[in-house]
Amino acid sequence: MGRYMLSWAVYRAAIPSLMRPVRFCTFLACILPVFTPLHADEGMWMPQQLPQIAGALKQAGFQADPALLADLTRPPLSAVVRAGGGTGAFVSDAGLLLTNHHVAYGVIQYNTRADANLIEHGFIAQNRADERPANPDFQVLVTTSFDEVTAHILQGTQSLTGRAYFDAVENASKQMVAQCERGSGMRCSVLPFNDGLQFYRLTQLPLRDVRLVYAPPRAIGNYGDEIDNFMWPRHSGDFTLLRAYVGRDGKPAPYSKDNVPYQPPAHLQVSIEGMREGDFAMLAGYPGATYRHRSAAEFRHQVEQVLPRRIALLEAMIQVLEQAGLRDADLRTHYAAQLQTLKNQRKRAAGELEGLQRSDAVRHRIEDERQMWDAWRKRFGATQVQAAQAAFDNAIARTLASSERGQLLAEITQRTQLLRAALLMARLQIEQDKPDTEREPGYQQRDQTHVEGFLRQLQRRYAPNAEKMLLSMLLTRYQALPDELRLPEYDAVFGRTREELDAALYRLYAHTRLGNEQVRLASLAAIVSRRPPVDDPLLVAATQLVKADLRIEAARKASQGELLRLRPVYMQALAYWRGQQGRALSPDANGTLRVSYGQVESLAPRDAVHYSPVSTVAGIVEKHTGQVPFDAPTPLLAAIARRQFGRTSDPTLGTQPVNFLTNLDTTGGNSGSPVLNARGQLVGLNFDSNWESVSASWWFDPRTKRAIHVDMRYMHWLLAKVYPAPGLLQEMKLPVE
Amino acid sequence: MGRYMLSWAVYRAAIPSLMRPVRFCTFLACILPVFTPLHADEGMWMPQQLPQIAGALKQAGFQADPALLADLTRPPLSAVVRAGGGTGAFVSDAGLLLTNHHVAYGVIQYNTRADANLIEHGFIAQNRADERPANPDFQVLVTTSFDEVTAHILQGTQSLTGRAYFDAVENASKQMVAQCERGSGMRCSVLPFNDGLQFYRLTQLPLRDVRLVYAPPRAIGNYGDEIDNFMWPRHSGDFTLLRAYVGRDGKPAPYSKDNVPYQPPAHLQVSIEGMREGDFAMLAGYPGATYRHRSAAEFRHQVEQVLPRRIALLEAMIQVLEQAGLRDADLRTHYAAQLQTLKNQRKRAAGELEGLQRSDAVRHRIEDERQMWDAWRKRFGATQVQAAQAAFDNAIARTLASSERGQLLAEITQRTQLLRAALLMARLQIEQDKPDTEREPGYQQRDQTHVEGFLRQLQRRYAPNAEKMLLSMLLTRYQALPDELRLPEYDAVFGRTREELDAALYRLYAHTRLGNEQVRLASLAAIVSRRPPVDDPLLVAATQLVKADLRIEAARKASQGELLRLRPVYMQALAYWRGQQGRALSPDANGTLRVSYGQVESLAPRDAVHYSPVSTVAGIVEKHTGQVPFDAPTPLLAAIARRQFGRTSDPTLGTQPVNFLTNLDTTGGNSGSPVLNARGQLVGLNFDSNWESVSASWWFDPRTKRAIHVDMRYMHWLLAKVYPAPGLLQEMKLPVE
Repeated sequence: MGRYMLSWAVYRAAIPSLMRPVRFCTFLACILPVFTPLHADEGMWMPQQLPQIAGALKQAGFQADPALLADLTRPPLSAVVRAGGGTGAFVSDAGLLLTNHHVAYGVIQYNTRADANLIEHGFIAQNRADERPANPDFQVLVTTSFDEVTAHILQGTQSLTGRAYFDAVENASKQMVAQCERGSGMRCSVLPFNDGLQFYRLTQLPLRDVRLVYAPPRAIGNYGDEIDNFMWPRHSGDFTLLRAYVGRDGKPAPYSKDNVPYQPPAHLQVSIEGMREGDFAMLAGYPGATYRHRSAAEFRHQVEQVLPRRIALLEAMIQVLEQAGLRDADLRTHYAAQLQTLKNQRKRAAGELEGLQRSDAVRHRIEDERQMWDAWRKRFGATQVQAAQAAFDNAIARTLASSERGQLLAEITQRTQLLRAALLMARLQIEQDKPDTEREPGYQQRDQTHVEGFLRQLQRRYAPNAEKMLLSMLLTRYQALPDELRLPEYDAVFGRTREELDAALYRLYAHTRLGNEQVRLASLAAIVSRRPPVDDPLLVAATQLVKADLRIEAARKASQGELLRLRPVYMQALAYWRGQQGRALSPDANGTLRVSYGQVESLAPRDAVHYSPVSTVAGIVEKHTGQVPFDAPTPLLAAIARRQFGRTSDPTLGTQPVNFLTNLDTTGGNSGSPVLNARGQLVGLNFDSNWESVSASWWFDPRTKRAIHVDMRYMHWLLAKVYPAPGLLQEMKLPVE
Repeated sequence: MGRYMLSWAVYRAAIPSLMRPVRFCTFLACILPVFTPLHADEGMWMPQQLPQIAGALKQAGFQADPALLADLTRPPLSAVVRAGGGTGAFVSDAGLLLTNHHVAYGVIQYNTRADANLIEHGFIAQNRADERPANPDFQVLVTTSFDEVTAHILQGTQSLTGRAYFDAVENASKQMVAQCERGSGMRCSVLPFNDGLQFYRLTQLPLRDVRLVYAPPRAIGNYGDEIDNFMWPRHSGDFTLLRAYVGRDGKPAPYSKDNVPYQPPAHLQVSIEGMREGDFAMLAGYPGATYRHRSAAEFRHQVEQVLPRRIALLEAMIQVLEQAGLRDADLRTHYAAQLQTLKNQRKRAAGELEGLQRSDAVRHRIEDERQMWDAWRKRFGATQVQAAQAAFDNAIARTLASSERGQLLAEITQRTQLLRAALLMARLQIEQDKPDTEREPGYQQRDQTHVEGFLRQLQRRYAPNAEKMLLSMLLTRYQALPDELRLPEYDAVFGRTREELDAALYRLYAHTRLGNEQVRLASLAAIVSRRPPVDDPLLVAATQLVKADLRIEAARKASQGELLRLRPVYMQALAYWRGQQGRALSPDANGTLRVSYGQVESLAPRDAVHYSPVSTVAGIVEKHTGQVPFDAPTPLLAAIARRQFGRTSDPTLGTQPVNFLTNLDTTGGNSGSPVLNARGQLVGLNFDSNWESVSASWWFDPRTKRAIHVDMRYMHWLLAKVYPAPGLLQEMKLPVE
């Protein structure tokens, strides 16, 4: 959310090695009996959980049988798919797919030419032949099966610990994925749920021929851009219509003009009715990662250490780049995007910290955990539980001990351009010695296009002075770490004093030739054909640094393995305690389909401030300045001035609604999630959340957590009256007037 | 408002010369019959008008007899006085006076010592002997009489035009003031109402011994400072209690420890009840200047030319000072206050422009004026009215023609330090040749302390580079003016090309010695004793520039005279037209006592945004960062945490209110105005307005115009529970718990 999409890497890192040292109860026995959750709107429910909380769903206003929602491979949930980095939903029987403008942004950009700026002006396909192919890496994934495989994945792990656990689970998962994908044309994955208490295998149909059908102009699809990001009231038409195609045999196929529209297993009907405050709403999508079930120690560490450090680092990097840009227009241009990203991340991190503090999340989590262990001890006896608790607490403490170094290294290796390229090549060289399937994800043959693309494009984002100044600031902080956190390889390359650091940076950047694109590509070519790469001081340094990175990676896998072996105990205790409280427990998000339900709800974020839950076109006019990002297109302003809203008007407000607010539970990856009313009709398209709720990935505070949606009546009106597409309205069985 | 106070200069400039070329009707005959105003809350009513609009007042909820409000020299209005640059109200029979913290800021600052920071920590006098004397130039003015003197002032002006009109009115006014003040110890003034349709003589008792009794700490009295300025919701305790003293004979006297508390003609009772949305509220105070009755041509000129140019100039000056400060910490310090002022003025100007555009004020005013002339023509015949209208329109057009030069010269002469000092001395030298009473205001003997203070203090706000860069930017714009607006003296001093300008600025600032305080003071001493001043290139240049200034001043007086001779015709037409519409007309503000009435009202400034009309202590905690200006004092935070609000709590909100919002009509000068409930009790203290309403000095838009007040229950709670002053509560007859 917050207009960022999910990277698959987010939960790739979470595949655990795991052993249950003590099996207290089966998962279902732990969490049952399930009563009404205290906050009916909190939770990202697995579809199969919905019948268990049927009472709460009904009470919230859902008018159909919750059993209908239990299977994500059957209608209506089978209409909801992964689309690019977000979520999408089929809205016709001919593969028409609705998602966010920002989820489909790459597709629109890919089709933009000097003479046809589809981003700026939008796009309406005149007919099917006019629909534009997406970039080849844009995929739509339709889930076809979802099976628990816990027993299989954990088979033989009983006697293992640490790294061995990790490898056993990883290997079992990899084998299962390979077996599932072999010859099937499907995309398979094995994912841990409830921090490794369970594993599920997900089988998805990968649709690779996706085409652009309808995109509004940038100044509608992204009205307000970064200024309005995380803000309410909002006035954005953040939607785009795509269409999925398959081969004539009905199977997934790359783009071909002979392909035919895909017939989805289900599609949603866009509603022509509106909602009012208090109306039931539900949302289905692919949220990426939440941390709600992290331990109290991890909550405290996040609030007291990780977030303040992250904000300080982001702030320092912003300062460095702004300082460097003061007298260098060229540098400003090269780093404009990165600076924007840094500021956006700072805004987000500050919001996360402020939100957790406002909710007093640490104190609440500490108290909740104390009560949890108490209840668990009463049930299973003090001795056994205390041993498990101590083992878990120790594993957590060891993992968190090096987090400061982890944050610094992540910035040093990921926020640079040339050093990052050198590290990538150095690691690639090491991975080349393994068979392709055993290489780390990101360094396999299938990643080669991506790697080459990065090495080509970095020129546009690189200036030697800026990189040296960034590194100087970050490595000075690294040098200040306590001895036990320092790495000999980093010390050898960058020295241990300020003077040595200055000299090293000067030497490396004065002599490296990796700033030249041809040199980088020649070096890559040499590495992948297992010839010696070019002789370059930065590459030599990177080869040394990568040794430290590998050592850290190995330690992390061992510690992760050990931790994740122990975490399921914690989850069992938590599930038991929630059951005692009469509350159901939804697993933390992991990029699989989840359902959230709640209501259309207003927001009172601060003393004396109250936001209505529905915004209207009046706000577009109010915000319009004529300057990006508040440059509403003339046809839109003219249509608003004409006030011919007709059936898409809100009867209570007497004008055209644009966006609305619900208390639904969302996070990154939920971009493009369909929002349904009590009768299962599509009333909204999720695209952002408010700034007060960016902390919800850790702590759901019902007072402030809101999700922001495009009102389908706004899309309907745009297609009917402003940038007409009557054919699409007919296809979606919507009135064309 | 907007936490700026009224300068007497604002309406000193407005004293008009005036002749009525055509006397269409008497003022009363023009505006009567008076019905209910369309917007009952719009208008800054002269007390004597209130019985005329008694119906509307009653309808709005006023529960007493409007006739009680007709005389500003009788209770309760006689409790309302001018205090410093704002308004104040007596709240006990022993001269206790309530006004804003920011109105009394100079008094608090004057009593701040290295070992007693009264600004930071606030102040509570332990007893009367502990009350601290105000700075000697802080005065409280109690109005003792208010009489129409139109016939006298306009006597003999019938045959005069232009400058002669101006001089005749000015001389008649000066004579009347001198006669009134002679031997009486009173402060007198003669002021035009309705743009010169009427003149009134105001007699005021000047209380010169004013003492500081109670001030909250800065972080209460100015919580939020510039960040919250013009903002709602607000959480400021912007109040201070003073006490007026007089000699033992009951007459005004300078500070003496033998003086006794002044017994005011009336005082207000602080209410212990709260208000709710929709409750009647009224406010009395000394608003400085409004422009609501300016002509449509002037509205258009303001929106299309003056405000955009003002914003551009402010923006350019901010750029220059920020650029100049980049590498000069010393310069940054010297110009910090000026930069803050420029930014505040830019915020204000942008708000004014945005507000006028949002309200579509120009179009409405044009249409209103067209209907006005139509109605007037129907009543008095086309020929006669058209001649008057043409004469008026021409006079307006001539006045506006040189406004761009006027704006530039104002910045050049007022925004500089050294050049401003030189111009001041050059002008002083000229004025020395006249008898003191004939000198321009600001250059008379009584102004000498002020002049000397300015010449002493400018050092703290001056850096040669910044002044040269400012002048370079401003004079480059001056050089781009059309030939007919250029001034030979300015051209002679600064040249006509960029190169000549650079050379002139270099020469003047390289050689002037006025940067030295001793040189400035020696020069002043020479001038006032009519000896030749020091020989200095900047003073020589200023002597030349002042000739142009004098010529412009003379032209302005002539044009003002001519215009103000004609404006009463316009006012008669407007009053007639308002009468036809069933609306009363209140004269534009001119620094005299006015009454506004309306209701406690919430604000919905933008689509989907709604602000409650009452803020609470919860907002203080939410805004608290520990950093200035959101560094709520620990005793306040502790008291909020204890939640012992008792009787000062709001029964509906269940917590302690802080500030509230009304739709009352206010402008600069209304700072410190008492807000009364329907029974005439003091419920609030006006201190600011919202950003959306800064355009209200031109156009009152009831959708967005709000005034912001300190809730008297917040003051009561602070005095009872947080920084206790039980003696003061008893004196105000308030419960001490």
